Amino acid sequence: MSDSPITAAFLIIGNEILSGRTQDKNVAQLCQILNSLGIDLSEVRFIPDKEERIVTALNALRQCYTYVFTSGGIGPTHDDITADCVAKAFGVSIDVDPRAFKILDDYYKASGREMNEARLRMTRIPEGAGLIKNTVTHAPGFHIGNVFVMAGVPAIFKAMLGEVVPLLKTGATIQSRSIVFDKGEGDIATSLADVQKAHLNVSIGSYPHMKDGRFSVEIVLRSRDIKALDAAYQDVKNL
Amino acid sequence: MSDSPITAAFLIIGNEILSGRTQDKNVAQLCQILNSLGIDLSEVRFIPDKEERIVTALNALRQCYTYVFTSGGIGPTHDDITADCVAKAFGVSIDVDPRAFKILDDYYKASGREMNEARLRMTRIPEGAGLIKNTVTHAPGFHIGNVFVMAGVPAIFKAMLGEVVPLLKTGATIQSRSIVFDKGEGDIATSLADVQKAHLNVSIGSYPHMKDGRFSVEIVLRSRDIKALDAAYQDVKNL
Repeated sequence: MSDSPITAAFLIIGNEILSGRTQDKNVAQLCQILNSLGIDLSEVRFIPDKEERIVTALNALRQCYTYVFTSGGIGPTHDDITADCVAKAFGVSIDVDPRAFKILDDYYKASGREMNEARLRMTRIPEGAGLIKNTVTHAPGFHIGNVFVMAGVPAIFKAMLGEVVPLLKTGATIQSRSIVFDKGEGDIATSLADVQKAHLNVSIGSYPHMKDGRFSVEIVLRSRDIKALDAAYQDVKNL
Repeated sequence: MSDSPITAAFLIIGNEILSGRTQDKNVAQLCQILNSLGIDLSEVRFIPDKEERIVTALNALRQCYTYVFTSGGIGPTHDDITADCVAKAFGVSIDVDPRAFKILDDYYKASGREMNEARLRMTRIPEGAGLIKNTVTHAPGFHIGNVFVMAGVPAIFKAMLGEVVPLLKTGATIQSRSIVFDKGEGDIATSLADVQKAHLNVSIGSYPHMKDGRFSVEIVLRSRDIKALDAAYQDVKNL
């Protein structure tokens, strides 16, 4: 367990989410796992599958955060360019990887299909990368440096994430408390600011909701220090 | 209508989405509107409500894209710091805005509530900004330069977006066609790459799905050139 905060960014690669065709489902999956490991998700970016955009974003993010997770762009089609972009970002070569080739060749043979040019594309892995097992469709993801490259299809992303968990450092888990007031935010915001000032070790967020024209506000307190959290929670309850 | 592509970025500000508490609903709303206007959503970022992060992201994005839309952080609580960060990013002052004050003061008086310190926070608008009307809870958003600052609550975001639409340049709308094959991506990827090479004016995306252990792949063609689109669509159908 590490003392300094462990941070992460999530880079979602692909035109389908930016065009509104597909609703992202992987942010929520990743959040849940990272929360349980005490890793802070600090940034999420959606970008299109354009080489320059992917390389630039990868190099920016991997220098800022402990870990970078990517989803999308590792399939067999012409628009699957993530692996090549990762190699370019790290300045390493990329070619058919014998480990990845064997996994896919065995799988296709066993299922009566054949390796072809397109499928061979999925065995291209940057030099020096470790493979991430894919228990669903077998074409592996990979990790290099602090970057973990996974598939965008939610079921495959989830399976790969399960393989990645044992490789990650863990931190103290953030605990949270929440309380809902049947008021507008503006009715409690001034007193809430005072509570925040008195408990700097606790992050206090205020989330307004509207339902059937009625306002309510959910106050969420988060901290790694359970005593500080409980003290702040009491103060919020007394508002 | 403009000839060069009109691009946009969406900056989602707030801890609640990064912590997994809240599922974003605004990306889909924004996509739908921008598609109808012929504006390309080119990047989405989720960042926490930390001043340095917001200022840096705003300054990076507003230089890259025709428009930047933001959501979140313009309410009355201590963690609502977006307006101040926008002022800082643009290097302008920020103070209580008489137009915003009048809107909110009238609204609170009419509904038997009072302006207080927290609500006054929502009348702070960067110098030189235009207001964005909020027909739901009345606290306005604002626009300055090419940046449009809106609320995170989906119903309010949607209402504000409706007010913003008439202010935007429009481009040629992207048309799309799609076709589903009951095959794996790897079965058609090689031929699909040839179709892509033959129709450079059309963006061809391939989106694999899995349901009950069976694979299918949806091929989506997108272009502003309807003749090119139809020609490419015929070639994909003949795969």
